[in-house]
Amino acid sequence: MIILSGGTGSPKLIDGLRQLIPDKEITVIVNTGEDIWSSEVFVSPDVDTVLYLFAGILDKTKWWSIVGDTYNTYNQMKELGQNEILMLGDRDRAVNLVRTHLMKNGQTLTEATAALVKGFEIQANIIPMSDDFITSVIETPAGKIHFQEFWVSQKGEPEILSFEYEGIENAKLSPAVIEALSREEHVIIGPSNPMTSIGPILALPEMKEILKTKKVIAISPIIGNAAVSGPAGKLMAAKGLEVSSKGVAELYKDFIDIFVYDIRDDVIDPAEIEAMGIQAVALDTMMTDEEKRADLAKEILKLFEMDFETVL
Amino acid sequence: MIILSGGTGSPKLIDGLRQLIPDKEITVIVNTGEDIWSSEVFVSPDVDTVLYLFAGILDKTKWWSIVGDTYNTYNQMKELGQNEILMLGDRDRAVNLVRTHLMKNGQTLTEATAALVKGFEIQANIIPMSDDFITSVIETPAGKIHFQEFWVSQKGEPEILSFEYEGIENAKLSPAVIEALSREEHVIIGPSNPMTSIGPILALPEMKEILKTKKVIAISPIIGNAAVSGPAGKLMAAKGLEVSSKGVAELYKDFIDIFVYDIRDDVIDPAEIEAMGIQAVALDTMMTDEEKRADLAKEILKLFEMDFETVL
Repeated sequence: MIILSGGTGSPKLIDGLRQLIPDKEITVIVNTGEDIWSSEVFVSPDVDTVLYLFAGILDKTKWWSIVGDTYNTYNQMKELGQNEILMLGDRDRAVNLVRTHLMKNGQTLTEATAALVKGFEIQANIIPMSDDFITSVIETPAGKIHFQEFWVSQKGEPEILSFEYEGIENAKLSPAVIEALSREEHVIIGPSNPMTSIGPILALPEMKEILKTKKVIAISPIIGNAAVSGPAGKLMAAKGLEVSSKGVAELYKDFIDIFVYDIRDDVIDPAEIEAMGIQAVALDTMMTDEEKRADLAKEILKLFEMDFETVL
Repeated sequence: MIILSGGTGSPKLIDGLRQLIPDKEITVIVNTGEDIWSSEVFVSPDVDTVLYLFAGILDKTKWWSIVGDTYNTYNQMKELGQNEILMLGDRDRAVNLVRTHLMKNGQTLTEATAALVKGFEIQANIIPMSDDFITSVIETPAGKIHFQEFWVSQKGEPEILSFEYEGIENAKLSPAVIEALSREEHVIIGPSNPMTSIGPILALPEMKEILKTKKVIAISPIIGNAAVSGPAGKLMAAKGLEVSSKGVAELYKDFIDIFVYDIRDDVIDPAEIEAMGIQAVALDTMMTDEEKRADLAKEILKLFEMDFETVL
């Protein structure tokens, strides 16, 4: 089982899957398109979220950062007049420092992630999408800024003129991603932002072609005309895309088999999805508690005609 | 009033001076010969100790680090299998991050230190000895290691074959040091390690020549045949120097006027010091509490024929 993941929505679905199948059966290909150097460390926000989820230390009120982390370094820097773009907790900073040291000693992001997976005694296979540095840059009326600055520091407020994945033109899927895809048939595209989370993974050469050979289920992160969380809507609109599940399905139509939208969605016309040659399935995608996360995961396994319930 | 300072002994004396004269009358020229890159930040251990002293946050049980600091990043890194050479506290790390950012943005160590002085609302003038990177390297039977690794990680245990200040041959006194020395007549050489703390300051071009034109009082960090604290004795012995106050006086004899040794010293022969053309004065240099630190400072001001007691 492979899941393509960004932050928030996809980790929630992974949290559901973990209640049904053993961690070692789960491979997560993680977006690195929001990676950023901050305070001398290389931060890979989505990789960290997935690591903390499997390590059992993710703050599930925010779906990022380490539960109970302190901010003593951040606060002291602020007192001295320096605001970090990313508000790194003290333990979170340690993880990013370890990654940075390993990478400065010649390891790839994939190898450094594997070391962290081992350090946290995680059984799942967590693979960054690429070992090449890709980052999302947003053009606003005040100039170009990193996606994290747009979303975290500026609270997603600036108008978006355009955005791009810097570095994508020379980036490749990592060998570990290609290897994982070669031995798994089932791929879930998690309900993460199709622009900044899933978009960079799909933008890598070969990815769409490989997905065409797999059984792929995508879960829409949009209900009606708004994203469940995050800036997906604003970014889709900036790209001239319809902010709706149909808009998401159009992005994915060439390589997915099943498209899952929310039962509350009163804008979507399933016939339009089916007309793209895709099976449209309405499910409860608002994963507001553990049980609902497991329920959605269970329905997705059923769509794959898998039933792992007996495994645990 | 200028004091040349390293760690421990000199900050204790500064703590005494602060009880007698206003901070703004104190200029500290700080050793940077133990500076080191650690965990992606530029650490200047003696500068930090002096900063924390004046900021009122120095841990006076250890005479380094911030009182009550936490070690959440350090501990998380250790859990993930990475031991830092320097055990940086979380607030301490913030100070080093701010310094590193400023320096990466083109500021000199002197300018970055001035920014920290301002950030901590310190009135004293704290000046690193040089803006050039100098670091102390110790040659042991197992190879060359940084002084901090010798002293902190390896607890000062390895045999010392030799040691050197790397980078000193191309280093200069900072313009701020030269400027401060041009307008002050009284210089104290604090009771810090004459090898790793005072040695690098004196090794900079012009420094000894400038000191010859000043009224200079040096305080010995050695009592009998042992250092009050730290590895001074071992390092002096490695250089073939007599581990005694006389050995220290010989290092300083060309440019000091008064040499202060401890009243407990039963090895020193004051006549031998006087024979070098230096006034030898016995004082209680074991600054074990606030009052004793002020007492020693008072005696030194008297030797300068200054009496600042009325200032406060």
